[in-house]
Amino acid sequence: MGAANAVQNASLGEMIVCRINDLAAISEGGDNLTRIYLTKELREAADLILSWMREAGMSARIDAIGNVCGRYEGDRPGMPCLMLGSHYDTVRDAGKWDGPLGVITAISCIADLNRRGKRLPFAIEVIGFADEEGVRFASTLLGSRAVAGTFDESVLNTRDSDGVSMREALVQFGLEPDHIGAAARARRELLAYLELHIEQGPVLEAQNLPVGVVTAIAGATRLAARLTGMAGHAGTVPMALRRDALAGAAECIGAIEQFCRTDEGGLVGTVGYIQARPGATNVIPGEVSFTIDMRAPTDMHRKRAVADIVRQIEAIARRRQLALQLDVTHENRTAPCAPWLKEQIAQAIEAEGFSVFDLPSGAGHDGMAMIDIADVGMIFVRCRGGISHHPDEHVELADADAGARVLLRVIENFKPREGNLSPQVTG
Amino acid sequence: MGAANAVQNASLGEMIVCRINDLAAISEGGDNLTRIYLTKELREAADLILSWMREAGMSARIDAIGNVCGRYEGDRPGMPCLMLGSHYDTVRDAGKWDGPLGVITAISCIADLNRRGKRLPFAIEVIGFADEEGVRFASTLLGSRAVAGTFDESVLNTRDSDGVSMREALVQFGLEPDHIGAAARARRELLAYLELHIEQGPVLEAQNLPVGVVTAIAGATRLAARLTGMAGHAGTVPMALRRDALAGAAECIGAIEQFCRTDEGGLVGTVGYIQARPGATNVIPGEVSFTIDMRAPTDMHRKRAVADIVRQIEAIARRRQLALQLDVTHENRTAPCAPWLKEQIAQAIEAEGFSVFDLPSGAGHDGMAMIDIADVGMIFVRCRGGISHHPDEHVELADADAGARVLLRVIENFKPREGNLSPQVTG
Repeated sequence: MGAANAVQNASLGEMIVCRINDLAAISEGGDNLTRIYLTKELREAADLILSWMREAGMSARIDAIGNVCGRYEGDRPGMPCLMLGSHYDTVRDAGKWDGPLGVITAISCIADLNRRGKRLPFAIEVIGFADEEGVRFASTLLGSRAVAGTFDESVLNTRDSDGVSMREALVQFGLEPDHIGAAARARRELLAYLELHIEQGPVLEAQNLPVGVVTAIAGATRLAARLTGMAGHAGTVPMALRRDALAGAAECIGAIEQFCRTDEGGLVGTVGYIQARPGATNVIPGEVSFTIDMRAPTDMHRKRAVADIVRQIEAIARRRQLALQLDVTHENRTAPCAPWLKEQIAQAIEAEGFSVFDLPSGAGHDGMAMIDIADVGMIFVRCRGGISHHPDEHVELADADAGARVLLRVIENFKPREGNLSPQVTG
Repeated sequence: MGAANAVQNASLGEMIVCRINDLAAISEGGDNLTRIYLTKELREAADLILSWMREAGMSARIDAIGNVCGRYEGDRPGMPCLMLGSHYDTVRDAGKWDGPLGVITAISCIADLNRRGKRLPFAIEVIGFADEEGVRFASTLLGSRAVAGTFDESVLNTRDSDGVSMREALVQFGLEPDHIGAAARARRELLAYLELHIEQGPVLEAQNLPVGVVTAIAGATRLAARLTGMAGHAGTVPMALRRDALAGAAECIGAIEQFCRTDEGGLVGTVGYIQARPGATNVIPGEVSFTIDMRAPTDMHRKRAVADIVRQIEAIARRRQLALQLDVTHENRTAPCAPWLKEQIAQAIEAEGFSVFDLPSGAGHDGMAMIDIADVGMIFVRCRGGISHHPDEHVELADADAGARVLLRVIENFKPREGNLSPQVTG
């Protein structure tokens, strides 16, 4: 890597940070960043991204669900594409990197190719998904599900907190709800789906590495547990005669933590919510509700772990004479990253002089939907303190730059799995 | 015990249950029993109790704080008294036995003595305390504190949930707030304070006994704990990098339970309230608040236990890198029952044909205030399932009868500690 190249790459990172800030300025009122699906702020953000895409030599459009789509043709027109993407909506009071970093980095890489007049033997598309977070209609991955052809039409009738249905919001945005099917892409049009995203966790920071190779987007099982014992006076019921639902829940929480801590395969388990009733200082809790969130890099691993945890909780409840209600409230399958894409990402990371480090993604990403029509690869970029979904979310310029250099290298050295690069009609 | 006597004693229990129901009919609107300090229902109840006292041959009056006071002279007038009492206010949605059983049983015993024309070498007083539960002005034992001369005048300015001060409520009730001092009694007027009360716990039921000898009214220490760790995404933070405040709290709850379970001296510890923040299924709790309620039959035992628990919690917080805030929010000293009174109660129980069983009172009672001017003894009566402060609170007629027979026997065989039965001026 020559000095001229280094200067050029450094300015890639600077351009990315500059655009991250430009995009973050488009937000609902208030000090913090909030950019929700199908709002006027989302439309304004889409227009800005479209302009960046066109400036980078891409044809660009908004698709039927609001995704921003840019296409950079290969050395021949109509070739299948390497699709790069992430999302441009945010949670409320968001950080500015979660989503936009992947969209902006991809456009910056294309701009770099375009500046050098470089065409590859395949097309490159960049997609900014309009809804990944699911804040407005309580259903995540709406943008990528439409592209994968798995959009659930019933969501159109879901209403936001102001009573506006998704159908009405699409019309207000200038889209046609009955044509969402037109956003769907065919498997033959895509060589792969590749996403760069901030880690949203502390692992790369702990490893002192700017980037990592994602092994899988972990599936999740969520359970709701309710233990019922016997409420009683905190002073009058001897320990041996108690059926304390909170003491039982505490034992369950300890068992979940212990089970996950001793697992060496990336299993995580979290009890995030708990309520004890009646909830008075001087009353033994008669009923406790809590949630369990379990994630692992493979479905089999997660399912086995959930079954084990369920058995342990059942045993605790039985031993303590507590009635147990335990329900699965949510289940997402794991989206494994394709080994051949992991390999190409690893080679690029190594070539950029960094150690190759594999880690699972515990958070959900658009690849969970895209895996239905393409092999998926993901690059993680370190974020400060692992903090995300918070205004303190931060990525160092040097790390944004490192991520961009790795992505650019992956693109330039990309070898499709099939080796089949015959022209395809794009939808 | 002859057959005639048995019939007479059986009707003692019947009279008690009948009066329990009469008193329970005096309640605020709604299906359940609620009779709060200084309300018109309390006044109506006081008048009914006064009528029962007079019917039993006692002089009777309402004192300066609303307590109902009856006096049955001894074989000479003006003798110091054996004081029998309990309270006639209730919690909201109360059971009908907690408090009234002690007042009504005491009156029934006097009625029995009076029917037989029996006078003893000491006076007997029955007191129905007007506020033990502390529902209205958030301060318990107002009635007995006034009698003990330890009433805190600042409570007069406390306002209830409707904004009415205790001072105003006293005036509306027909009392003179500035004369509460007149309710105070002197130590020389009392030979002892004796209370019969439902157990409010499941111990006598588990022992298959109708009555028990209270060893002490356990003191209590209440603590408020707050553990602060680091919130994080339930999917992205590996177990080893977590500072999960709820997992830490669960370990504390387990330690408290384990410590109290292995104690053989009647120690009880309860975590009744817990809150995890932010409290979302998919977020690792960054902060958890919980309460601890610790009680033991002696102050030394409780204090040593609290110190031990605090050390354990500090160690758990340190090991988990959680910040800990731990404050004592409330502390009540233990009121030990006088050995010479326990002995006389035990003799009466034995004479009635029951096994003598000692147990501490985990709940608070008026004896905690009365101990400042008299030695205190307590008789517990079994209640179904240990349930109290609930409409399901229940005492079997046979147990009410057994309690009354024991109390009557204690009265008739009562030997003052000092043997000093010279006449005193009563206040």
